[in-house]
Amino acid sequence: MKEKEISQEGITVKKEDNMPDWYSQVIAKAELADFYAVQGFMIIRPNAYAVWEGIQDYFNKRIWQLGVKNAYFPLLIPESFFQKEAEHAKGFAPEVAWVNNDEGERLAIRPTSETVMYSMYSQWIRSHRDLPLRINQWCNVVRWEVKQTKIFLRTREFLWQEGHCVYATEEECEKETLMYLDEYKKLSEEILAIPVLTGEKTAKERFAGAKKTLTIEGFMPDGKALQMGTSHNLGQGFAKAFNIKFVGEDEKSHLPWQNSWGFSTRLLGALVMVHGDNKGLVLPPNIAPVQAVIVPIIFRKDKESVMKKASEIKALLKKHKVVIDEREEYSAGWKFNEWEMKGIPLRIEIGPKDVEKGQVVLVRRDTGEKKFVEDSYITKAVKDMLEDIQHCMFTKAKKQFEESIVEVSSWKEFASAIKEKKLVKALICGEPECEELIKDKTGGATSRCIDKESGEAKGKCVHCSSPANHYIYFSKSY
Amino acid sequence: MKEKEISQEGITVKKEDNMPDWYSQVIAKAELADFYAVQGFMIIRPNAYAVWEGIQDYFNKRIWQLGVKNAYFPLLIPESFFQKEAEHAKGFAPEVAWVNNDEGERLAIRPTSETVMYSMYSQWIRSHRDLPLRINQWCNVVRWEVKQTKIFLRTREFLWQEGHCVYATEEECEKETLMYLDEYKKLSEEILAIPVLTGEKTAKERFAGAKKTLTIEGFMPDGKALQMGTSHNLGQGFAKAFNIKFVGEDEKSHLPWQNSWGFSTRLLGALVMVHGDNKGLVLPPNIAPVQAVIVPIIFRKDKESVMKKASEIKALLKKHKVVIDEREEYSAGWKFNEWEMKGIPLRIEIGPKDVEKGQVVLVRRDTGEKKFVEDSYITKAVKDMLEDIQHCMFTKAKKQFEESIVEVSSWKEFASAIKEKKLVKALICGEPECEELIKDKTGGATSRCIDKESGEAKGKCVHCSSPANHYIYFSKSY
Repeated sequence: MKEKEISQEGITVKKEDNMPDWYSQVIAKAELADFYAVQGFMIIRPNAYAVWEGIQDYFNKRIWQLGVKNAYFPLLIPESFFQKEAEHAKGFAPEVAWVNNDEGERLAIRPTSETVMYSMYSQWIRSHRDLPLRINQWCNVVRWEVKQTKIFLRTREFLWQEGHCVYATEEECEKETLMYLDEYKKLSEEILAIPVLTGEKTAKERFAGAKKTLTIEGFMPDGKALQMGTSHNLGQGFAKAFNIKFVGEDEKSHLPWQNSWGFSTRLLGALVMVHGDNKGLVLPPNIAPVQAVIVPIIFRKDKESVMKKASEIKALLKKHKVVIDEREEYSAGWKFNEWEMKGIPLRIEIGPKDVEKGQVVLVRRDTGEKKFVEDSYITKAVKDMLEDIQHCMFTKAKKQFEESIVEVSSWKEFASAIKEKKLVKALICGEPECEELIKDKTGGATSRCIDKESGEAKGKCVHCSSPANHYIYFSKSY
Repeated sequence: MKEKEISQEGITVKKEDNMPDWYSQVIAKAELADFYAVQGFMIIRPNAYAVWEGIQDYFNKRIWQLGVKNAYFPLLIPESFFQKEAEHAKGFAPEVAWVNNDEGERLAIRPTSETVMYSMYSQWIRSHRDLPLRINQWCNVVRWEVKQTKIFLRTREFLWQEGHCVYATEEECEKETLMYLDEYKKLSEEILAIPVLTGEKTAKERFAGAKKTLTIEGFMPDGKALQMGTSHNLGQGFAKAFNIKFVGEDEKSHLPWQNSWGFSTRLLGALVMVHGDNKGLVLPPNIAPVQAVIVPIIFRKDKESVMKKASEIKALLKKHKVVIDEREEYSAGWKFNEWEMKGIPLRIEIGPKDVEKGQVVLVRRDTGEKKFVEDSYITKAVKDMLEDIQHCMFTKAKKQFEESIVEVSSWKEFASAIKEKKLVKALICGEPECEELIKDKTGGATSRCIDKESGEAKGKCVHCSSPANHYIYFSKSY
């Protein structure tokens, strides 16, 4: 045992006291990510990257079934391409990093790939038989934001997926724009156990070049919303700009309809913030790269029987992702702390007494609850407990989420609810100028999405008193 | 049936007549990749990207078992980092694309990530308990080569994996440098069915900054070698340059040993060249994203029974990757051509007569051989045939590979064997100046690797007559 040499300090700041510092500590101590010598960039370390790979696996299977195929497009975009769709160029220009090119025009490092991909789509699409065309890519993008870096949430480079589809009809395009948003909601709620609002962005917050932007919005325990995925109905604007046309069944030439949709490594930040506690990260079983860790509690004379049982239990649990922590240079207690810090959902303790009694000890990460389970029930007990952890984590997050929502009917209420870090629902006109003023007056609150579930409404904007037709959610955000 | 409107032209150039044109046609017509508006860049289309994903899946499983974990490091490298290891900087400088940075020094787009990763390793590694550290990343890299673009083989941006490990001892480092090379050989030969030479690079061809570079070298049917993966023993040079140190069990500070190893989307080019034929791509079953396609041959009245049987056969073959081509707007013959072009290993034809007779027709892509199989034998027949295709493809490639090797004992023989596009084995001194002259005199032949299997040799260099201790392979190359 040499553990005494090793400093293993837990999280020293409480989540409820100082969430930014708590967040930084979890990121560092669970070895999720690190800062880099260039401002605004991050290193995604193996513990976090494995979660990202889990998200990729899950999502690839989903979109494969929807007829989407993965591909890879270039990192660099000629300036002239980038300029083709005016709104798009205007929206992204401030964030673009440029590469000098001795041979010709400047090259942008992709902040998003609409222009790259659609320059090719115009060559590939000829007939209605080529549609729908559904392509996705997983890649890095660079947006030279100048705001302060926050790992996973605001960095100049991040990883994401971007899906880009082309359709013969407006109906199909709209239908699938919604379908991808629904996939995002499923990923967030069923896999990551993070509840979200879904809805349409207002004109001010719309993707540059889109006709309509749909979003899923999470709400973090520190009272800030986090946009977790967006699906854009691009209309025909890019098709016009890039001259994408197809010959229809009527043998005439038509402009197609397009959507694009993406989520990024931001999701890793949401996982940390929503589920983490004062012992570190807490991962939902459905996305944990390791669902259960077996920690053998070994004293010299019992080593063989304990290790044998650990292997047998692991074999029984082959449907789950289970590892045995066989390291001998660390004590069991040290290991408990480490796996708790890393957020592994379930710990299975096996000591000499457990061998004797024909049992194991299950300890769940989310509540700390301990349970003794007879060997013969272990398979069912682990399955049930993992399901219950997933369920409880979502339920808890959902409760917190719902408690954050406040509906208001006056500007006074609105302003004070924002001050109280709520997710505020109000009748708002949705005019960009009005939203700009709200942002200024509240020190940063922006519209998150239009609440379509409440349907059409009739009334006056709580801010400017102009006619308002919808409830809109507002809050501060990442 | 509207197929007549659709032009579906096969490959119009023979592989044996004009391999470069044949290669371009296969790439374009099998929809593997495309050129881009910026010179030197490529689009990897879904048909090729799916093969790359298969390679990633296979390799991730292998390295996971070897204790390697995936992560992601930044795209951009500060100039000062890049300069830290002198040989490395010198080797890569001509190929680097630079990003202007208003805030400080220039930033290189990574051509490889040694300097990025080792700047972090120096912060992460403290104790012998942190070793071995084994991290891999899948990412894009940019090397601003000025030679002519060749899709998959020579492009300015490509995708790859780069593994970067740190060890406490030289022995462990050397052992694992070899182990990763062995994994590359397995990937190439057992999965991609491409035979390779393995060996050490000469001083001239060594990775910039490495102590030793090991390589796997394929040999293409047009008489050019293709470096398909390299594993570098970096010694302690980078550890010194980046100040990576660890406290050993002796409680003293030590410099660790490092290796790095990578392969890229070049492998996709090798697959096309080695296995493709005058009908298009031919994929080995072990890497084919679709291993078998069921083509129902439908006439109106029999549609239902044929489609029912197709579904039943697909269900029987659930251990393999099988699709049914249900499209009604194309004829069976058109579909046969398309799937042949795409290189799918096995075609399963089911027509009304086959339903009647209780059989299917299997057609293998590699030889075109047709076989009638009774329904009750289908599972075994498909399994056996896929295995046989894999085996035959490797055997055929191996024979071609071995026939390309010529051992020579004089300069005259050497020069004429190079002219005959052979992979030439000869006693060569291995001095960089001598190799430079050989390259000039032969119009581009370079050393591929030192043949360690023949062991130490004693003799004179066939080129310069200096003492030579090893046989070395030479050829032209991609």
